[in-house]
Amino acid sequence: MVPRVVFGRGSFNQLNDIIAPKRLSSHAPFIFLVDDVFKGNVWLTSRIPLSYQDKILYISANEEPKTSQVDELVEQLILTNKELPSGIIGIGGGTILDLAKAVAIMLTNTGNASDYQGWDLVKNPAVYHVGIPTISGTGAEVSRTTVLTGPERKLGINSDYTPFDQVVLDPELTKDVPKDQWFFTGMDCFIHCIESLNGTFLNAFSQSYGEKAYDLCMEVFMDDALSAEDSQDKLMMASWHGGMSIAYSQVGVAHAMSYGLSYLLGTKHGIGNCIVFNHLEEFYPKGVTTFKNMMRLHKIELPQGICASLDDHHFDTMIDVALSLEPLWENAIGKHWKKTITRDKLKALYQKM
Amino acid sequence: MVPRVVFGRGSFNQLNDIIAPKRLSSHAPFIFLVDDVFKGNVWLTSRIPLSYQDKILYISANEEPKTSQVDELVEQLILTNKELPSGIIGIGGGTILDLAKAVAIMLTNTGNASDYQGWDLVKNPAVYHVGIPTISGTGAEVSRTTVLTGPERKLGINSDYTPFDQVVLDPELTKDVPKDQWFFTGMDCFIHCIESLNGTFLNAFSQSYGEKAYDLCMEVFMDDALSAEDSQDKLMMASWHGGMSIAYSQVGVAHAMSYGLSYLLGTKHGIGNCIVFNHLEEFYPKGVTTFKNMMRLHKIELPQGICASLDDHHFDTMIDVALSLEPLWENAIGKHWKKTITRDKLKALYQKM
Repeated sequence: MVPRVVFGRGSFNQLNDIIAPKRLSSHAPFIFLVDDVFKGNVWLTSRIPLSYQDKILYISANEEPKTSQVDELVEQLILTNKELPSGIIGIGGGTILDLAKAVAIMLTNTGNASDYQGWDLVKNPAVYHVGIPTISGTGAEVSRTTVLTGPERKLGINSDYTPFDQVVLDPELTKDVPKDQWFFTGMDCFIHCIESLNGTFLNAFSQSYGEKAYDLCMEVFMDDALSAEDSQDKLMMASWHGGMSIAYSQVGVAHAMSYGLSYLLGTKHGIGNCIVFNHLEEFYPKGVTTFKNMMRLHKIELPQGICASLDDHHFDTMIDVALSLEPLWENAIGKHWKKTITRDKLKALYQKM
Repeated sequence: MVPRVVFGRGSFNQLNDIIAPKRLSSHAPFIFLVDDVFKGNVWLTSRIPLSYQDKILYISANEEPKTSQVDELVEQLILTNKELPSGIIGIGGGTILDLAKAVAIMLTNTGNASDYQGWDLVKNPAVYHVGIPTISGTGAEVSRTTVLTGPERKLGINSDYTPFDQVVLDPELTKDVPKDQWFFTGMDCFIHCIESLNGTFLNAFSQSYGEKAYDLCMEVFMDDALSAEDSQDKLMMASWHGGMSIAYSQVGVAHAMSYGLSYLLGTKHGIGNCIVFNHLEEFYPKGVTTFKNMMRLHKIELPQGICASLDDHHFDTMIDVALSLEPLWENAIGKHWKKTITRDKLKALYQKM
């Protein structure tokens, strides 16, 4: 779990006070990985505290984070600095936060990022790393994973060294998120909750976090009376609690199938979850009905027919990725999930999307 | 915040796997501070993993923890061991958990525990310390304070080094708590929530945790349909979320006045809160009504007339302690609390108890 958190509108201004005591030397810079949508946005960038050789690296979040991208960033940091960075600070959504976590790990662990995809493979503590979300829903700010697309699979680096050492939750940073992205990323949280609360792995710890995240999503997406500020505050907390919920349980059918879409087609995680979840009435009847009501209320249109031109080889690839995520299926369906979750069933579902 | 947590019935059995990698040497023992109600209870004590010079110290929780008690324990540990302990493991309720946190801090910080009562006075990181609650409600397992009665005041050691490095949440450990204690300690959590949710310091972070803890308390104390196991699980999570809520806000009138009772009369924290809260309709009308319903439902009798034989000097002492807790009053009433919270008002309230 994340040992230190600050929360509050404007708390981003505390960043210098937070990181300054963590500077190791004047040759050990802080590296800020920042979503490139903020390039030129002085409201945010002028408040990033730069000293000595600290650097901002602007990074596009248009694609899901890749192991190769992590390896390149790490090589670049090692080649251009005399010492290891004092810290990696991720400022952005799930993509940037996951990159920041992975880069911090790979600066102190040999080999390639893809070597560490899995559970508890990381040997050495990561460089100090700070997460500052600028969009809410993924739970990346609190999770003990960093989900990366590698040469062979889309899978997280899950370890005790993955979570951020410090998180800054400043809901004001989310004020300019475009509506579609706000919705799709928020639904990542909503879908987490449905999958966690309806899973066989559920315990009272995950349940209490999942229920709170669900309640907050209902307020944010179904209650017109909230002010913009309250809505931003509550969605940031929903993301936090949703992330805590799945840290101690597991996600389910939507995430398993969405990973397949993402691996083959590069579909972004938030929208991919929505495209899949829209067809999962069989597994999550109440959740899917609520989701459809939310879409209607916010006039959200999902892309249609994204699998229309795929051939059998493509379907096989997606099905392989989805079926490889065994813990997700076991959580969703139970120990004997292989009896009902067949390749034909998944193909039929993908064909609807 | 606590960086590592395990949750689950029977998770106490994982204790050896959790602490073994933290052993510094064969001369650096783990010290288990255990509530003396468990002395001779082999169901629990036989599962405490002892190796090398590890020791169990049984400690009475009949009195609130004192700074002098911390100093004595620390001296004893330093005199009887060649090296600093590898870790301090507290197994008990709020009293034992607070002692464990304070001992871990004072093993690496010079002077007396009373020197560190206040905010952020601790200089050095504490010895590794683990918290294992055996009763639910105080939130001591998650808080960044350890509330101690010192020579001059009852006040916490609040610091970034106070929280446990590891918490084991095993609701099964609470199965034999006597009913009155279960109720009074659970009400500590319920009263936290009322004070936090009705406070002026509230933000969306504290609110979301406070609301969840409140909902769980309502399930546990107002819903007869829960199984004993579910009730234990949910109350343990209520305590956790309630502790998180006040970590980022503040408590209020009940805690301020209860500290006065506790300082003068040694009243235990849980029952002291209840005795005070029972008379706070003016400040928390809905919360007090619900509390009285819970008392009725569980046939709980509060002690009456505990202030009946006190003289003016006694009242002054309690009022001094209560009024010294300025942040609690500011949270409860607002910036101008001194206009309405007079010594006469507090005396009249204490006289009812």
